[in-house]
Amino acid sequence: MTEMADLNAALSAAAAKVEATLDEVLAIDGAPETLIYEAMRYTTLGGGKRLRPFLVLQSSRLFDVAETSALRAGAALELIHCYSLVHDDLPAMDDDDLRRGKPTVHKQFDEATAILAGDGLLTLAFEVLADDRTHTDADVRAKLVLGLAQASGVRGMVGGQMIDLQAESRTLNLEEITQLQRLKTGALIRFGCEAGAILGNASDQTRAALINYAQDLGLAFQIADDLLDVEGSVEETGKAVGKDADAGKETFVSLLGVDGARQRANELVDQAVSHLAGFDERADLLRLTARFVVDRNH
Amino acid sequence: MTEMADLNAALSAAAAKVEATLDEVLAIDGAPETLIYEAMRYTTLGGGKRLRPFLVLQSSRLFDVAETSALRAGAALELIHCYSLVHDDLPAMDDDDLRRGKPTVHKQFDEATAILAGDGLLTLAFEVLADDRTHTDADVRAKLVLGLAQASGVRGMVGGQMIDLQAESRTLNLEEITQLQRLKTGALIRFGCEAGAILGNASDQTRAALINYAQDLGLAFQIADDLLDVEGSVEETGKAVGKDADAGKETFVSLLGVDGARQRANELVDQAVSHLAGFDERADLLRLTARFVVDRNH
Repeated sequence: MTEMADLNAALSAAAAKVEATLDEVLAIDGAPETLIYEAMRYTTLGGGKRLRPFLVLQSSRLFDVAETSALRAGAALELIHCYSLVHDDLPAMDDDDLRRGKPTVHKQFDEATAILAGDGLLTLAFEVLADDRTHTDADVRAKLVLGLAQASGVRGMVGGQMIDLQAESRTLNLEEITQLQRLKTGALIRFGCEAGAILGNASDQTRAALINYAQDLGLAFQIADDLLDVEGSVEETGKAVGKDADAGKETFVSLLGVDGARQRANELVDQAVSHLAGFDERADLLRLTARFVVDRNH
Repeated sequence: MTEMADLNAALSAAAAKVEATLDEVLAIDGAPETLIYEAMRYTTLGGGKRLRPFLVLQSSRLFDVAETSALRAGAALELIHCYSLVHDDLPAMDDDDLRRGKPTVHKQFDEATAILAGDGLLTLAFEVLADDRTHTDADVRAKLVLGLAQASGVRGMVGGQMIDLQAESRTLNLEEITQLQRLKTGALIRFGCEAGAILGNASDQTRAALINYAQDLGLAFQIADDLLDVEGSVEETGKAVGKDADAGKETFVSLLGVDGARQRANELVDQAVSHLAGFDERADLLRLTARFVVDRNH
């Protein structure tokens, strides 16, 4: 499928540029605190689809934002995503030993270094956004900081992680699962799409269209993840249930069934795309991205 | 001593206002992530000298900055200080069960909640600074964010904590201890003094004077802490060595001796005060603060 090939090529090209920007903002100087820099670089560089920065780049394209601005804002968002994985993997949280086939930070280094490296990445994200190399207009920089802080704090990602932890001891219904995902994974995706509107000084109406797109995209993304968790297992192990079900956690699939979840994801994709009706062909990759999240197989 | 009574009264009055501001920025809404809000409030509210916000208030006074601006910037700085204590107390770090006579966050709640509450406080600090209620000029807000991120990140506090961890396995010399403290405790004190200059759009020269004051103050503060660790123990337990010495860590006292350390602290205080020569009587409480840090007994 040519369109999907186009999207994959665009994703790869963007990922390479994001990688270079991350490498730059994580440049190690000769300070004695080498170990923490190493841990920060270890966990951030060398992998990942970089979906969130891709959304920043694509939403920025709609408003002819300078590429450096979009790349730096995307890198800041990715730093937040990476820190959240480091802290999530800690023994007191999900206790994971491997991430993308590599030992997690607390395994490769130690727990204290993982905690501090996460703190360092989180803090660096805001340093990058507030720096005037990200945008010449301080008002734009302050709005980016505010938006990213809201998306990643207790009213966003961190709040979602807390609900997720508490969910281990009780059963969530569909509304609660939706709220959890809107915060835990949705908030950063939303900021990715909103960032272009902030960088481009877009009107409130245009910004709202991107936010609506992002909210449907984020939810479709999560439902697709739940489907992969189940169907990946079916193919690979012959078991019909995946790790979420094993952990006794409710998911969109356990609540809606496989067919119901797939139908819901497709509805959300259509709805996401409809919010982009006001944009020209520069939004085509965002439209394709929405299709991609439910059709991907990894 | 009347002057010290004046300072104590000013510290108490400031602490009460800072407490009210922190209470406001930590206002709990009805969201389901109640536990994390509780943990954030538990660890932040209800105590502490609030020395760092006091420095923001006093440096702001030199430039007639609006009190709300200074209080919100001070609250943001205090949020960073509080998050660092929560993460520092974790089992993988200093493993402390008590803080100011109360169970630490991971003891009162659990480790995962402590990690997330720390992340939430850290993120909230930047949300507070980027909010236009902190200052109407976006350029000032962006500079505050940049300054606080630099002071608290790998080139500041977090970097210092990393050196401190690594120092457990080797012996630091005077230069290295000085560098460690300049980052670990000095960077936030420096930002506290710099914040007034940023909020007041002070000249580079004026800002530099406050930074120089802050650097000497921060070091004097740390030396005084090391002295208290030794002399507090002498009075209370009859032992000549405190917990740092027990842990095999070098301190200013172990490297300079008690008399040498006290002399160095006094020199630093004189030097700190000399950097304030260009300011009028509005800097008197900053001058007294420098005296206070070496004369305090707790």
